[in-house]
Amino acid sequence: MANVAAKREISSAEGEELSREAKRAKGDDKNGEESGNEPEWENILSTFTTTSVLSDSAREKIMFLHGKMAGDEAVVVLEKTPIREDSLAELFRDSKLRLDMRNDIYSSYRLQAPSHLNEIKTTVVCPATEKHVKKYRRQESFLVEETGDDYRSVTLPYIQEQSLSLQWVYNILEKKAEAERVVYDDPDPEVGFVLLPDLKWDQKQVDDLYLIAIARQKDIKSLRDLSSEHLPLLHNIFHKGKAAILERYNLPASKLRVYLHYQPSYYHLHVHFTKLGHDAPGCGVERAHLLSDVIQNLQTDPQYYRTRTLWFPLRADDGLLGRFKEARRL
Amino acid sequence: MANVAAKREISSAEGEELSREAKRAKGDDKNGEESGNEPEWENILSTFTTTSVLSDSAREKIMFLHGKMAGDEAVVVLEKTPIREDSLAELFRDSKLRLDMRNDIYSSYRLQAPSHLNEIKTTVVCPATEKHVKKYRRQESFLVEETGDDYRSVTLPYIQEQSLSLQWVYNILEKKAEAERVVYDDPDPEVGFVLLPDLKWDQKQVDDLYLIAIARQKDIKSLRDLSSEHLPLLHNIFHKGKAAILERYNLPASKLRVYLHYQPSYYHLHVHFTKLGHDAPGCGVERAHLLSDVIQNLQTDPQYYRTRTLWFPLRADDGLLGRFKEARRL
Repeated sequence: MANVAAKREISSAEGEELSREAKRAKGDDKNGEESGNEPEWENILSTFTTTSVLSDSAREKIMFLHGKMAGDEAVVVLEKTPIREDSLAELFRDSKLRLDMRNDIYSSYRLQAPSHLNEIKTTVVCPATEKHVKKYRRQESFLVEETGDDYRSVTLPYIQEQSLSLQWVYNILEKKAEAERVVYDDPDPEVGFVLLPDLKWDQKQVDDLYLIAIARQKDIKSLRDLSSEHLPLLHNIFHKGKAAILERYNLPASKLRVYLHYQPSYYHLHVHFTKLGHDAPGCGVERAHLLSDVIQNLQTDPQYYRTRTLWFPLRADDGLLGRFKEARRL
Repeated sequence: MANVAAKREISSAEGEELSREAKRAKGDDKNGEESGNEPEWENILSTFTTTSVLSDSAREKIMFLHGKMAGDEAVVVLEKTPIREDSLAELFRDSKLRLDMRNDIYSSYRLQAPSHLNEIKTTVVCPATEKHVKKYRRQESFLVEETGDDYRSVTLPYIQEQSLSLQWVYNILEKKAEAERVVYDDPDPEVGFVLLPDLKWDQKQVDDLYLIAIARQKDIKSLRDLSSEHLPLLHNIFHKGKAAILERYNLPASKLRVYLHYQPSYYHLHVHFTKLGHDAPGCGVERAHLLSDVIQNLQTDPQYYRTRTLWFPLRADDGLLGRFKEARRL
């Protein structure tokens, strides 16, 4: 899921960039077709040879390629176009169908459409630099199984060695940064937290609402540190966070997905609030833990998250994955 | 590189399937081509007229349609297929390109591919009932909280009243349908299961691998029915399912997300196997339960899923949501 998140960020950043560029080109580009009727067909891609697939998404039908075009380094992005309602009649009339499967009232086919009804959006960066190539390269993820002992012998030492700065988190808690973005602030040192929009959310619409609650307690690294003594803190974040979102965004609790990540991307306890139905990066079952479930599990077993085996994805270039390999746990 | 190998293997598996299908067609279908080389083409969709677009996703390039086909109500799902690495060379050689924009090192095109390299996966439900139409119509979702008591007093009676036909499941288990699609079959009546590709997966690449394991035991409706007595069944599905996927698709367990849905879309125990990194619909934390977690929870508490509160999303038009409202549980 981390993978997909990274990809999606690239995709949407790229999409924005492309559309801005397209707009610019519309104004500046003087070599457009004069007649406006006949399309200008090229075959520059016939000289393209693929070196590697940098990343792709079967769900989004997009592929990022690195290769060479007439001697130059190039990045090519292929993306199937959305299905258009206004071409359906022609599509059904002029396509060929190949039966794949039939069972009861269900059948499935492969449909071959006239190619002008089924284009592929193609973006070329040429000559491309190493920076372009890196930008589009995706890393594979691997599911890691971490017992309580693995946590103490592999993960915890790794986290401590890294000692990544949390200064930006403390800046938020102390109102030294992003103070104007804070949606709700509970100053209690034990159960208090700060709620603010995640940077991924542009706050333009609630459809993709995404907020983060950051606990004021500084010594809780992750889910693994939680025990029943933290129940008042978790309850407080759960209830006041939902109430603040209802008040500010008019979105009731039944429309929210409230969860923690394991592994988190930074080791200071924080909780994600995203809109149900918005496919937020990182909301997959392999990384997300519903806060309501976490509370219930701690109520039943105060040491639940200290003793249980937990599973999570790690990217191939994650140092922690290397440690799990060294420990022969992968 | 492992990816490439796996893709090639799928291609050849697909090739085998095609030739098997061609053989079947030759035997059963009296109006098939005599040569046995040409695929079996249909044009049933030419009689389809669209009544409405039930939902669509520009991001996923998918569209759900309601309409009529030769007098019958029908639902048609069109989904563009993922881009295939093994067809890139042919794609670049044989496609036409139309320049849309050029600016500095960036350019963008519309690519028209040979139609056999750019198919649209088409699923037809015909005749379709109002329930099918409803299933695909876009709806808001609400998160429901279900205690063990709620399950027994609200959910279970509702499921029993609905008594939806599971004939298509039994057809698969009894090899009366889709027998040629089965990837692995364990015939044991207690712990056995059938593993086959989900209809959402076109099997052309492992990137969006999606298989379903259907238990042979017929009396397990969902997660709620599971207790420690089912651990041998769950272990068997988990281990043999992963082994079968490694053998057939060369995809190791560390690349798999294995989970159950609650609520499931049909009440006969089944387990989802999807590729980690593929953002499969329904893999979100609000609906998916990792099989490894389910096993661990049942090992610790044999009645875990019969007693715990569970959360899940229900669409606005789901009859079960109405029942929760009537019971003042929402």
